[in-house]
Amino acid sequence: MHHRADDGVQTRAVAGPPGLRTSVIRSVVHRAVVGHGDEVIGFEDGFKGLLDGRHRKLDLDAVSGILARGGTILGSSRLERARLREACESSKELAREYGIDVLIPIGGEGTLTAARMLSDAGLPVVGVPKTIDNDISSTDRTFGFDTAVGVATEAIDRLKTTAESHQRVMVVEVMGRHAGWIALESGMAGGAHGICLPERAFDPADLASMVEERFARGKKFAVICVAEGAHPAEGTMDYKKGAIDQFGHERFAGIGTKLAGELERRLGKEARPVILGHVQRGGTPTAYDRVLATRFGWHAVEAAHRGDFGKMTALKGTDIRMVPLAEATTELKRVPENRMDEAESVF
Amino acid sequence: MHHRADDGVQTRAVAGPPGLRTSVIRSVVHRAVVGHGDEVIGFEDGFKGLLDGRHRKLDLDAVSGILARGGTILGSSRLERARLREACESSKELAREYGIDVLIPIGGEGTLTAARMLSDAGLPVVGVPKTIDNDISSTDRTFGFDTAVGVATEAIDRLKTTAESHQRVMVVEVMGRHAGWIALESGMAGGAHGICLPERAFDPADLASMVEERFARGKKFAVICVAEGAHPAEGTMDYKKGAIDQFGHERFAGIGTKLAGELERRLGKEARPVILGHVQRGGTPTAYDRVLATRFGWHAVEAAHRGDFGKMTALKGTDIRMVPLAEATTELKRVPENRMDEAESVF
Amino acid sequence: MHHRADDGVQTRAVAGPPGLRTSVIRSVVHRAVVGHGDEVIGFEDGFKGLLDGRHRKLDLDAVSGILARGGTILGSSRLERARLREACESSKELAREYGIDVLIPIGGEGTLTAARMLSDAGLPVVGVPKTIDNDISSTDRTFGFDTAVGVATEAIDRLKTTAESHQRVMVVEVMGRHAGWIALESGMAGGAHGICLPERAFDPADLASMVEERFARGKKFAVICVAEGAHPAEGTMDYKKGAIDQFGHERFAGIGTKLAGELERRLGKEARPVILGHVQRGGTPTAYDRVLATRFGWHAVEAAHRGDFGKMTALKGTDIRMVPLAEATTELKRVPENRMDEAESVF
Amino acid sequence: MHHRADDGVQTRAVAGPPGLRTSVIRSVVHRAVVGHGDEVIGFEDGFKGLLDGRHRKLDLDAVSGILARGGTILGSSRLERARLREACESSKELAREYGIDVLIPIGGEGTLTAARMLSDAGLPVVGVPKTIDNDISSTDRTFGFDTAVGVATEAIDRLKTTAESHQRVMVVEVMGRHAGWIALESGMAGGAHGICLPERAFDPADLASMVEERFARGKKFAVICVAEGAHPAEGTMDYKKGAIDQFGHERFAGIGTKLAGELERRLGKEARPVILGHVQRGGTPTAYDRVLATRFGWHAVEAAHRGDFGKMTALKGTDIRMVPLAEATTELKRVPENRMDEAESVF
Repeated sequence: MHHRADDGVQTRAVAGPPGLRTSVIRSVVHRAVVGHGDEVIGFEDGFKGLLDGRHRKLDLDAVSGILARGGTILGSSRLERARLREACESSKELAREYGIDVLIPIGGEGTLTAARMLSDAGLPVVGVPKTIDNDISSTDRTFGFDTAVGVATEAIDRLKTTAESHQRVMVVEVMGRHAGWIALESGMAGGAHGICLPERAFDPADLASMVEERFARGKKFAVICVAEGAHPAEGTMDYKKGAIDQFGHERFAGIGTKLAGELERRLGKEARPVILGHVQRGGTPTAYDRVLATRFGWHAVEAAHRGDFGKMTALKGTDIRMVPLAEATTELKRVPENRMDEAESVF
Repeated sequence: MHHRADDGVQTRAVAGPPGLRTSVIRSVVHRAVVGHGDEVIGFEDGFKGLLDGRHRKLDLDAVSGILARGGTILGSSRLERARLREACESSKELAREYGIDVLIPIGGEGTLTAARMLSDAGLPVVGVPKTIDNDISSTDRTFGFDTAVGVATEAIDRLKTTAESHQRVMVVEVMGRHAGWIALESGMAGGAHGICLPERAFDPADLASMVEERFARGKKFAVICVAEGAHPAEGTMDYKKGAIDQFGHERFAGIGTKLAGELERRLGKEARPVILGHVQRGGTPTAYDRVLATRFGWHAVEAAHRGDFGKMTALKGTDIRMVPLAEATTELKRVPENRMDEAESVF
Repeated sequence: MHHRADDGVQTRAVAGPPGLRTSVIRSVVHRAVVGHGDEVIGFEDGFKGLLDGRHRKLDLDAVSGILARGGTILGSSRLERARLREACESSKELAREYGIDVLIPIGGEGTLTAARMLSDAGLPVVGVPKTIDNDISSTDRTFGFDTAVGVATEAIDRLKTTAESHQRVMVVEVMGRHAGWIALESGMAGGAHGICLPERAFDPADLASMVEERFARGKKFAVICVAEGAHPAEGTMDYKKGAIDQFGHERFAGIGTKLAGELERRLGKEARPVILGHVQRGGTPTAYDRVLATRFGWHAVEAAHRGDFGKMTALKGTDIRMVPLAEATTELKRVPENRMDEAESVF
Repeated sequence: MHHRADDGVQTRAVAGPPGLRTSVIRSVVHRAVVGHGDEVIGFEDGFKGLLDGRHRKLDLDAVSGILARGGTILGSSRLERARLREACESSKELAREYGIDVLIPIGGEGTLTAARMLSDAGLPVVGVPKTIDNDISSTDRTFGFDTAVGVATEAIDRLKTTAESHQRVMVVEVMGRHAGWIALESGMAGGAHGICLPERAFDPADLASMVEERFARGKKFAVICVAEGAHPAEGTMDYKKGAIDQFGHERFAGIGTKLAGELERRLGKEARPVILGHVQRGGTPTAYDRVLATRFGWHAVEAAHRGDFGKMTALKGTDIRMVPLAEATTELKRVPENRMDEAESVF
């Protein structure tokens, strides 16, 4: 490391709300401790732990056997914006207090925006993008996404058998509030007969026609894959967003349930909603995600040792590159037109 | 075969609503065609196809490569009781018309009750129990159950990681309207912290206490596994069954969603429902289910050749036995007290 | 508990070579600690740890989050017979030294025979059968078996696609030195075209004919599933067992490799061996195995509290019963004739 | 389409040795038939079927329900170089005979080199790269690779549990004769403690030291992942390649088995080889591979309609681009130094 912390120990802090992944932490610890002789500490529950001073040392034993585990070994939390601002103001003191040479936050849009604020406030920060939604700009993929797509695809595979046996229409709602990547790729991989994304308003009449054509051709079932953030085109369907509860969730009936009801009404056939929900999040990551996470961790440590701060790790083709946090957090990466065209024309 | 059909060809019919499984059909065809030189025909959409005369020949080619597929290659349907009675009355003509030496219906309580009616009406019938609910009496297990438990357990595994990372209460609703077998076994296998079954009314206050104790011990998450047919004890929770729609489904909010709301209210903590639904049904069957299905098919053919009619195949320990349909369909097999005690005391 | 240990603490010891499973340990700890207020200690590396005095306390925290893990949290070992005899002689002192009220060894034939010796020597013992080979008498199934069959079946599924694409004969060798349960059930579940078990000598000429018939019918591939302990009938194939190395393994070419070579010679077609080996052992257990393990653990603790010693937990139909260790260890449970007949006649 | 075939029907031919994948075929058929009104025919067993005139029409029904299947619906074959040259010479007649507007071969290095020869001979060709080895230049990834890495990683996960329980060294041999991509990524994803690739000779002394250090640190197991094409550095190990049989295989003991023996000799500890072999090839493809295959198929059809011949589909970042077959088949894509450095330094 370039700088030595006050207490004469090389230190590096890992923080990570919401959903810091074990395989990145493992990789950071291996590379930093074995490769550079650094000391690594982890803040419990991410930035919250940073402010509250709850942390613990992460050595090789702490990360042993965690590669096939999902989730986080540190916990995560949502931090109110006010407290984050407080952290920014006191960031230099914080860094001095813990003897931090670099802070490595791991997370999605919220975490990386916070990372950018801390970086702007003068803290040495290297970010790692982690979100199942794949909606971070400047990187081909975020990790967690491949695993979520795998879970959703397996569910669609299962639903297709049961839809076929029972001659039914199934509407499967997958995650993706602002970007439809999971719906796009799981719908394509699972061979869904219709895909609805937040990026392009759908017309329930088109979906109903597609189903009717299938039934007319003797294919007496259909599976439609819909992102939770998808919405009907203006005036095509009686639709309003459900009330939002105190925990930020739309209660009871999301778009999947509503679309199933609408299709039932139009088709006079049973249409069942299936809401995959949190099942897409946890569990053992795919090999793809573990490789990506491991490489991200490795490159984050190398960037830290080069003093390449204010950036995050990014996948570009087959390479890992460092891109400015500012560039990565300016806007969400949404599904482009040509990908939607591809998806719509193979089914 | 004992009897020869009118047209001089040995014939055997396979019918199967709702959810006739490919691996039984494959086994029946292999054993009957290769082992005995029989001819096998399958009725499309089960009993409906029998009445409508829609059937096709099932030879080795028709069942090639289907062992790892779930669902059915014949389709299935729900048949109204009136039409079934019609089938019973005309059953002997039906049998003569198709040259049927034996009818092998594959399904759950509805199918097997119909099978019993046809048998009582004089048709030669050998049943095969298939239901993911495992609620057929006189057999240790039905096939489809192991696969459903596997899917539900994997979902609970995933939810536990995410519940732990996000410090949440999750309520996962699994299938089981009248019998709680899936909830019992997936809850036990997944290590759910609470299990609610139709067989024993639950008290939400107990569940809330359990969660609070866990949080007090520093385990800041909990997963509760609830069968769709579970219900609160009288007076413990403001609860009424949802309205039933024209397709026989309780719309929008089942017990999982309601219980999550109730826990949120009591705990002041976020509690999220996850409804697994039809994902539990389809897909590649487990090895256990494939072995059971194959053995059931084999023994059904042997029973037919022995003229052992009016019975169904059943698993007893490690053996396959024939049990009277009358005995198997008298009452549903529900989870006994001692199994619930076991489950409640290991968590 | 009946007895109190010297130090006034109720104590129970868990030992388990070779391959003690985490889900049994978890269940024992939950039931004993939460249900009865007992104290549980685990001996590292099974009986070896018992003799060497290496043990640690197992409380709720020690078994948290291990249900989906395979393997053991305690390690395992093979113990030489002489040292075991030593343990038997000093068993009462051992029990007194550690304040043991009951010893719960978990394992296969070797472990349970040792358990019986310790029981005969006067130690209070309750055994739990665990072996992937399913070859313990007096129980319908051992746990670990369902998981091994699942892994082997998935491998056969994969090999069938590749055998079909490449028009090849594949010989897949699965575990089972003395009993062919894994080959029987994975071969049946995977739809192997031939199954060779230790219980019935095979004739390579029959296998070659079967393959030739398939190719003649236009099915230009075949998969044969062979237990590692299978052997050709006298005089049918030039065959001798390979040399045994210092670690007890037949080096290089087992029966799978030899049979593939023999078939290649006879058929003039490529026949490739695939040896699954240790892949069948580890990993996340199936839901079936986790339920069985949890129930075994629960009943072992209850038996201990009833003073029902010298027995092991056993699955009989859907019930868990206690059976004498003497009965369970007299002879291996091998595949009976009727199961082999079933398997041979559906393919 | 630009050209109309002699019989007035738009035609497109799909050929694909060795290992033409169903999901590409499905995508080609969907896009060509639905999107453009083309007619598609498939040649059985790839180029062999092209020469022998064995083909069949591929319409929507022919590709229904095959997305989750691996392997090929057309079969594949190895074609001798002489016959391929014959095909090149007669290629224009062939194209005229079948009324072919474009030939879409799907496969690895051999298939794509053949495709290039046919293209050079004047046939309109659009290639699709498919090989589990990921060794085709000019594309970030080939499809089939992600699935193979997934299977190998799951195997390593399982082997780690069993290696840990039994305190053993395991050497797992994965595919990759000339390029070590599978070993690199599955070794990294599975957390293998050593990785040996064809691209960099290994020294068994280094591997032995690594294992001894682990044992000294109390980690009494190790898993080493070795590509089948890996080899020891000159003079470090008594090693010669095994004899090659008539089917082109090294018989009995590949590098995995030999390295395990060498480690056993050096360490005096048991070291077991596990050879994954063909299990890596078949089975249900991952979601990643299905998306890639579907996009490749879609873009191949579009390229054909643009007359963009002599090229193959390639993944570049998140885009599908067309690259010249000449560029793609000049040299194998091997693991670069920096990827090996990454992999070696995180374990």
